[in-house]
Amino acid sequence: MTPLLSPSELEQRLRRIGAERYHNLHPFHKLLHGGRLTRGQVQAWALNRYYYQSCIPLKDAALMSRVEDPAIRREWRRRLVDHDGEAEGEGGIARWLALTDGLGLDRAYVVSTRGILPGTRFAVEAYVRFVRERSLLEAIASSLTELFSPAIISERVSGMLAGYDFVSENTLAYFNARLTQAPRDSDFALAYVKREARTPERQQAALDALTFKCDVLWSQLDALHYAYVSPGHVPPGAFVPAEAGRS
Amino acid sequence: MTPLLSPSELEQRLRRIGAERYHNLHPFHKLLHGGRLTRGQVQAWALNRYYYQSCIPLKDAALMSRVEDPAIRREWRRRLVDHDGEAEGEGGIARWLALTDGLGLDRAYVVSTRGILPGTRFAVEAYVRFVRERSLLEAIASSLTELFSPAIISERVSGMLAGYDFVSENTLAYFNARLTQAPRDSDFALAYVKREARTPERQQAALDALTFKCDVLWSQLDALHYAYVSPGHVPPGAFVPAEAGRS
Repeated sequence: MTPLLSPSELEQRLRRIGAERYHNLHPFHKLLHGGRLTRGQVQAWALNRYYYQSCIPLKDAALMSRVEDPAIRREWRRRLVDHDGEAEGEGGIARWLALTDGLGLDRAYVVSTRGILPGTRFAVEAYVRFVRERSLLEAIASSLTELFSPAIISERVSGMLAGYDFVSENTLAYFNARLTQAPRDSDFALAYVKREARTPERQQAALDALTFKCDVLWSQLDALHYAYVSPGHVPPGAFVPAEAGRS
Repeated sequence: MTPLLSPSELEQRLRRIGAERYHNLHPFHKLLHGGRLTRGQVQAWALNRYYYQSCIPLKDAALMSRVEDPAIRREWRRRLVDHDGEAEGEGGIARWLALTDGLGLDRAYVVSTRGILPGTRFAVEAYVRFVRERSLLEAIASSLTELFSPAIISERVSGMLAGYDFVSENTLAYFNARLTQAPRDSDFALAYVKREARTPERQQAALDALTFKCDVLWSQLDALHYAYVSPGHVPPGAFVPAEAGRS
């Protein structure tokens, strides 16, 4: 049996999961950030990740539908605002579509999610289902990958701007917004988890939830790497970059 | 088999359900609005209805967790804002607590929901579950009781101010806000239902959902009337008004 951790020991354990399992360590991200992908491979990344982005408000609303405290719901509601915006064309999903637009993908095709990899779909669905079905503590703990995202984002933006002539500051606007949103959100979620995980069982559940979420992010890059880099077997029905000669 | 209705015929049928089944027709509401209840009976009403109020954002978030269109989520999000407010002490739930405060109920007791009737709990839970599990069309159609609420609210506010010296404009602030929020919300939901219910089966599902919701509201008043008016059998564990000598 794991012993009871102090809140700061728990935080250290959570952060260690990020240090070992966050998807900035994945070979696909190293290629992406290093400017070593083709335009078609970057398109595939943005297309697939759109599905993840589009499902984030669904998981946040599912989480809120089980929060009895209005104060926590108000706090969590900001995530809905961040992703859906206040009006048409605003918010994180719209900014992600600006990215796919900028990469030359047809918007209707992106929004249809017809071309995404099955591996993307299954991973994202698993995440939404996890948040819907597990305890509130686990649902909130699974959001803690945001603790690790500011580092990857700065790296990604500078790397992509330097590495790709088809990428501009404007198309990467999504990430600038996340630089302030993610720390605000993860501060709240971390404080919640440190406060609410007060038995060894609940601490282990929170740690496992964060590990699960790292797996969700990691496996999406596995699927991209397998389909579009090495060996490069695109599954039937999935997006085929134009330069591969089949579009 | 029901024939396919035009959108305006569907609206007429929806409105007829309200005319026949909305809870303004319930004897308890007539007593409440007519100033014919004791303070203890009004307390019981406000205490029980708090549970309904507190669960509304949970059902709205559950609904949003299944809406794929950000534009509809943005529209529905206003309901979360209305109920939870922008800050501590704001929003519909806080305004309802101002009402229970004004009626002399202990706030911690109200929020605990320990004293509510089982009939209240079961009806409200059935509503949240319905919205969580049924089709989005049914979930949205079940909100259409708001089409009928402005009439009952004006009646309620004037009737209660005239009838009870323990009620003030201030304690009834909840209802003033609803006078503008409810029509805005029900306009949107009605347009959605008229647009999306385009087969006889879906039209019937929408009509049934509104009937179900009328039952949810009605049965809460049945439980109150039975427990606190006639015959006045308060179930074990439920709130007992002080003037009945057991508080």
